[in-house]
Order: sequence, then C-alpha cells, then structure tokens
Amino acid sequence: MKHDEQLPALSVDLGGTKIVAAVVGGGGQIISWRRCLTNIEEGTNAVLKRLFSVMDEVLGEAKLSPAELAGIAVACAGIIDMKKGVVTMSPNLPGFAGIKLRDIVASRFGVKTHLINDASAAALGEYYLGAAAGRSVENLVYLTVSTGIGGGIIAGGRLYLGADGCAGEIGHMVIKADGPLCKCGKSGCLEALASGWAVARDAKELLKGGGKSSILRLAGGKIEAVTAATVALAAREGDTLAQKIIADAAHYLGVGLANIVDIFNPELIVIGGGLAKMGNMLLDPARKAAKKAAFGLPGRTVRIVRARFVNNAGILGAAAYAFNQTQKEAGG
Amino acid sequence: MKHDEQLPALSVDLGGTKIVAAVVGGGGQIISWRRCLTNIEEGTNAVLKRLFSVMDEVLGEAKLSPAELAGIAVACAGIIDMKKGVVTMSPNLPGFAGIKLRDIVASRFGVKTHLINDASAAALGEYYLGAAAGRSVENLVYLTVSTGIGGGIIAGGRLYLGADGCAGEIGHMVIKADGPLCKCGKSGCLEALASGWAVARDAKELLKGGGKSSILRLAGGKIEAVTAATVALAAREGDTLAQKIIADAAHYLGVGLANIVDIFNPELIVIGGGLAKMGNMLLDPARKAAKKAAFGLPGRTVRIVRARFVNNAGILGAAAYAFNQTQKEAGG
Repeated sequence: MKHDEQLPALSVDLGGTKIVAAVVGGGGQIISWRRCLTNIEEGTNAVLKRLFSVMDEVLGEAKLSPAELAGIAVACAGIIDMKKGVVTMSPNLPGFAGIKLRDIVASRFGVKTHLINDASAAALGEYYLGAAAGRSVENLVYLTVSTGIGGGIIAGGRLYLGADGCAGEIGHMVIKADGPLCKCGKSGCLEALASGWAVARDAKELLKGGGKSSILRLAGGKIEAVTAATVALAAREGDTLAQKIIADAAHYLGVGLANIVDIFNPELIVIGGGLAKMGNMLLDPARKAAKKAAFGLPGRTVRIVRARFVNNAGILGAAAYAFNQTQKEAGG
Repeated sequence: MKHDEQLPALSVDLGGTKIVAAVVGGGGQIISWRRCLTNIEEGTNAVLKRLFSVMDEVLGEAKLSPAELAGIAVACAGIIDMKKGVVTMSPNLPGFAGIKLRDIVASRFGVKTHLINDASAAALGEYYLGAAAGRSVENLVYLTVSTGIGGGIIAGGRLYLGADGCAGEIGHMVIKADGPLCKCGKSGCLEALASGWAVARDAKELLKGGGKSSILRLAGGKIEAVTAATVALAAREGDTLAQKIIADAAHYLGVGLANIVDIFNPELIVIGGGLAKMGNMLLDPARKAAKKAAFGLPGRTVRIVRARFVNNAGILGAAAYAFNQTQKEAGG
C-alpha cells in the first residue's frame, strides 16, 4: 500500500451488526471515520439510507466531494458476485441478497465502486497494514471468528478471490461430516462447531438438559439470553461446564487451522473477530493443536497470530483493493 | 506452455509404485518416454540407481546430452521442502525422507534441477496441456484419488506452492473430526475416508465381521488380498456390500469437493488417479453431492471433470515448471 500521492478512497464495511465508514489516504492513513449500528430489523431501505448518510458524513468531515475520490469500496458480509457487484446471499444481511449494491452505491455517488467480501477485505488490510506488515509474508490466511466464521486468502502476495470473487469461505469447510447442522445448510462446518453462535447453542442445549453452571445466572436467568460472551465470562470465573464448551470449540478450531496449514502452507494465519479475544482459553489451545496436527514442515513454518485491527481491517483492506484496481486500470 | 524454441527438459515422476521419465520439448511434446516399477522394497539406493538409468535411457533415446537440456524436474510424492530440495516425508517413499534429492540429481547430471510435489506438477500438467487446455480457467484444483489422495492448486493462473512448496495437501484436510485414523496421524482426513486404501480397509473390516459379499471370492478367498479394485469389480457385478462401501466413499469425496468449491471458488476441479475411473459409481455421485452442498454461486460456476492424462500429467507439469523457472531466471 504505497500510494501516497494518490487521491483518497471512501470505504465502508457493512456487517450484520455495525457499519464502519472511512476516508482512507493512499498510504493507508484514516482521514475520517464513523461507526453506527446496522439495525437490519428496520429493513433494507433504512439500512441503505444509513449507509449513505454515514458515507456522506465521512466525506464531509474529510472536506471532500465524491469527484475527489480515487474510488469507493464496499466490504460486505456474504457471498459476493464481484463480476456483477451483487450480494448473492448473506445470512447476516438477508435483505441484501440479490441487490445490485455496487451499482446502487456507484450511481448515488457518481464514483467507480467496488464490492468485496468483508473477510477478503480484512485479509488485505491485515496483509498491508496489520499483522503481516513489515514481515516477509507472501501467503496469509485471515480468519474472523465471531458470531460466524469468515475467511480471506492472500496467495503469492495477491488477494485470492476465485472465479466469481467469493473464494475464502473457510468457515463453511466441513470438518465433521454428519456433525451439527450449520446455518448454510451443510452439516459439521467449522462455523457450526467453533463460532460464537455454536458456543451459545451448545451452552443453551446443556442448560436446557439441566446442566449446572453459572452461565444461567450471568445471562440474567434466561437461557435464550445466553451468548458466547456469557459463556466466556463464566469460563473465566472457573465454571467447568463453560470451560468444557470453550475447550470443545478450541479443539475444532484447531482441526480447522491444521487444515489451513496443510492446504495453504502459509507463513501467517491471522485470527480476528470477537472470539479471538479469548486468547488463553480458545486461541492458544487451538494454535497448539493445529501446529501439532499439521505436517511437520508447514506446521513449523506457520505463525498463528491475533489480528492487529479490531474495527478497521475491512475498511483499510477495501481501500487498498480500490487503490490496486485504480492502478491496474491506469496500467500501473 | 509456449516455449517452442526452448531447449527440452528432462522430467521424471517418482511415485511409490512406478517411475515415469520423459524428455519434453518446449511446446509440451514428449520426445522420449519410459516407465518402470519403483520396487521400493529393494531399498533407496536401488531406486535411485533405477531412477538414473531410466533418465539415461530417455536422454539416449532423444539423442541428447545433459548439456542440451533446459533443466531437469523431479516430481515426487511427499511433503517437499522446495527451498532445500528435500523430501521431508513421504509415506509411499519412506526411504527418501530427509534425502537431498534435488542436489543428488543435479550433481549426477550436472544440470539445474527442480524438485516438486507430484500432485502440484500434475495440476500444472492438466492446467497447461490437459483438462483445462483451451478453456478460460484461472483457478484449478487438481485431486488425485488413488491409493492415497494428493492435491495441487492453480490460483490466479499460477501454481500455488505456499511458503515452503508443500501447499495442496487436500487429501489430509480433516472432513470428519474424530473419524478413522489416517496414515498421517490425524483422524478423519479425506484420504482416510475416500481413498483406495480406505475403501480396501472398509471392505476388509466388513469381511472380517462376517459380511456376505463376492469381494472375498474375487480376492481369491484371501481377505488381506482385497484392494479397491476388487471392491470396484464386486460393485460392478451387483454386490450390495461393495456398492455400499463405494457409496460411502463417494459421500465423503463429495464433502471434500464441496469444501474445495467453497474455499477456492475454482472454475475447474480435475480428478485424476485410479479411483477416478469408477465414474458412475464414485465420481458422478460425489460431483452431484458437491455441487448441491456448496454455496449457490461457486457451485454453479465449478466444473468437476476427469483428468485428461493417466500417466503423463506429472512429467508434463514438472517440465512446464522447469521451463517457467528457466524463463524467470532469464528475466523473461
């Protein structure tokens, strides 16, 4: 990301929970920044309106008109058809499925717009400016372990997008065939075993089965209010049922990481997302198990680290993507 | 592979069962060709001797001296450290683990030599000259379903090798955590569920358990003589136990293929190896299941086809790798 003399880009990360927007300079510096809740329950049109207004706000704060932008990049959760600029499906943004989001944004601002999967954008952000910055890394796999599990791939120093732009769905790699049903319709996906919703599901099932645990008290006595965060809190307090649930998730995360090591032989795996914060309980045992299970050579080579960015990997990576595309089109 | 005016390459594919060697011209034409058995039970030195003599033979037949070669490429089964030119481990060629095979070959012939994983080489062979030739393909995953399962990856039009050169171990992607033990030490690898040895293992276990089947008769009454080929033959004769074993393998192969589709979003998956011949019994149901299980967009995009080459994908791909490296070093 060495585009210091370049016009800035406007990038926005549209997720199921929150929207982050920023104007980003050619060197990766954040010129203006805003975050708001997505509130999908208000409907797709209301979300689009909020998306536009937060984009207007960061433009205004940066004192820029759309004509002064190198481009716009929208990072979005879901299966993206990059050729068509369409979100083909998105469990966390169901109302956006089938909508030509790229063209809608492009015509609202009159600026060349790119639509990219949020985890692919985050992979690029961590590659250029985050966990991989300053390291000799050509091959990186980014995994966001959050409510769901998303992935992005850097292969040979370039973002790997596949035929349509929707490569990297590592969360939906089946690691336990005939295992628990995933939201995607398959059974035994990594996401169905090691994500936030999987941890919450396990806790609810065990509590409903009469399991003794402080999880219920921490959730205000309501089983339906249990989240992965409640389970993590209970585990930290020493609750053995909660610790068992997280140990199981760590076991399966380790299986998934070992698969990534053996398939990609990467120098670096970067783990972002809310669950990555459970370092000693989740990430450390998963990392240890993965390095042990993988083949010797790639297992010794790989470093498995936490993401550098909490909120900004997506917008920084999306901006980098826009800069790269602008340069490509200019024949650079 | 457009190197018609280039010197030819000598390439050799060293597997656990057989050795194939050829002199290959810059356009991919095979100038001379030999095949022999590996006979690993005779020891590593005897295998090396046989390797050298078969290489001498194809050189002689092509009326070439080593000095007239663009380079030598050795495709070898196992986990290859390409930087060091060493086979770090190889279940099918255990005696070669730790041997500096690249340097040994280079000093025997006095020619620049490359060592590459056999399935990665085969991916390149199918990409340039086989199943992908003449098609608009940038992203291809090659899978050899044989005694074991190997893999090779073409990403964005280039061979993807990872940090050390050992990427692509798709056969050792765990798809059924806590499933049957694999030869690699992990449990529930694709190879432990859908390879030739897995099919033979299932048949032997069922027969030992008293299962009624024509497999035993076809194996000459000896359970230990049962192979995947025996099971395939029995299934073709209508034996229900054999058909069930192959249907199970197809189910798991489908799970693995769907993972490949969702992770790589490739235009093409190419399946080689002996078991690919069981088209209607193994490959067709696996392909159908994979396209159904994968996400809609990548599932519609991908074509899953049989490899074009039976014996020569490895030697052609290895030669292509040697040509590409020669060109790179010449700054081309």
